[in-house]
Amino acid sequence: MANAPIVMTNAGIDALYSFQALDEHGEYRDIALTGERPLTIYLDKREIVTLMTMGAQPELLTLGYLRNQGLVAEIEDVIAVQVDWDVEAVAVTTRQQVSNVDAKLTKRTVTSGCGQGTMFGDVMASLAQLSVTCPSFSSDLIYQVLSGLQDYNQMYKTAGAVHGCALCSMDGKVDIFVEDVGRHNAVDAISGWMWLEKMSGKNKVFYTTGRLTSEMVIKVAQMAVPLLLSRSGATEMGLQIAQQTGIGLVARAKGKHFLVFNGFEYFRK
Amino acid sequence: MANAPIVMTNAGIDALYSFQALDEHGEYRDIALTGERPLTIYLDKREIVTLMTMGAQPELLTLGYLRNQGLVAEIEDVIAVQVDWDVEAVAVTTRQQVSNVDAKLTKRTVTSGCGQGTMFGDVMASLAQLSVTCPSFSSDLIYQVLSGLQDYNQMYKTAGAVHGCALCSMDGKVDIFVEDVGRHNAVDAISGWMWLEKMSGKNKVFYTTGRLTSEMVIKVAQMAVPLLLSRSGATEMGLQIAQQTGIGLVARAKGKHFLVFNGFEYFRK
Repeated sequence: MANAPIVMTNAGIDALYSFQALDEHGEYRDIALTGERPLTIYLDKREIVTLMTMGAQPELLTLGYLRNQGLVAEIEDVIAVQVDWDVEAVAVTTRQQVSNVDAKLTKRTVTSGCGQGTMFGDVMASLAQLSVTCPSFSSDLIYQVLSGLQDYNQMYKTAGAVHGCALCSMDGKVDIFVEDVGRHNAVDAISGWMWLEKMSGKNKVFYTTGRLTSEMVIKVAQMAVPLLLSRSGATEMGLQIAQQTGIGLVARAKGKHFLVFNGFEYFRK
Repeated sequence: MANAPIVMTNAGIDALYSFQALDEHGEYRDIALTGERPLTIYLDKREIVTLMTMGAQPELLTLGYLRNQGLVAEIEDVIAVQVDWDVEAVAVTTRQQVSNVDAKLTKRTVTSGCGQGTMFGDVMASLAQLSVTCPSFSSDLIYQVLSGLQDYNQMYKTAGAVHGCALCSMDGKVDIFVEDVGRHNAVDAISGWMWLEKMSGKNKVFYTTGRLTSEMVIKVAQMAVPLLLSRSGATEMGLQIAQQTGIGLVARAKGKHFLVFNGFEYFRK
């Protein structure tokens, strides 16, 4: 943390609702539903965007969103992040000038991601600057990560309709696990946490339940994490970006199975 | 179709790539990957957005996007939809004035959806105008729809990393089935097709492989389809919107199982 710590609320909410559905036999069944609510981000009093979120980590989500969209350059620029669910908004105060925010907001790409599928700016153009060094990795490491995650994924197991993401160490220890209604929110919240904690992605493994579309791989590259695991598949463009940045990419990682999509030369079974 | 038919390209692409991955035993496995590419929409020469899409139905996707975002009021306003993959763009020409487009683009909501999770304008405010009349529905109807869809979902079965959506008749006949890397793209393409064909959603069933977050249910309400089936779960807000609009909502519909989330009084087992 900087000398002057960031003023932050701690407004995470438990977003599980119980409900009775009818099953195919016409019988009532107790169901847990994931909550979903709007959160409008105001950056220095300027309305930026409304995210739909489960609301478990609204401050980290906000920080990660601003970081990944390039709307705030340094964590040291942030003075306060204050969530107020009564007005479904988060107010972010910074030391920076917002004069260049308009320019950044002009170019929108609506991506194929669950959740916050909007990327401002020309991220694609700067891919070359994002190259990482893939570590050597073994089946054992992958199984350790998967096994360490078994205690998490709680909301998914209970209610479904969410995506989970985790940042793990190379020994499989889970640093942080976040679930949200969109896979992008979960990634952004982890990115916000790393930013806040000044944590490097260098010796980390990133895990997601979600599909590896282009912008998911880009976000992991932006966090400088060299190894990416997904329980789901990948698109051809997600793979291309992993190849261009050097990220080791492991898809369909579930139980005892997985498929290495990139980083063949670093994989030892 | 209007007297002057819309000038449209037919630029759908087969978006399957073959690739060799390494499995957990270090052995090569043939894998099919879903393609994903950017498509920038220009509306009367004004850049609107870049969507990431599989590219199977780019013209319908474009029409549906413009319809669902409220950027073009009537299909009769559309003169031409011309996709050119060489420049990854689609040019839409209309008869309308674009003076109000800027205002509509100002308010962004990044939603929790896979894919095009951006809703311009105040859709939420106009929910009351979207109410539908849920038909009575039986287990048999649901099984008919699910069984009719077994021949589709091809890309999903082959490559994964996609979502599929379908519009079906009340006898389970599939009118149209679309897959894309984001569940919103698939919904929008179907919406574009219904707009083009001047088809009412009144006696239809909508099926999606994707999760029923708020904006998915809103889009189905905008299409005036009174019954919504998903292979996945729903969020609490997705359910709320179904309750407010009267849409019959059936989640976790797969094989012989499903859960009725809304429209209990219309369900006969």
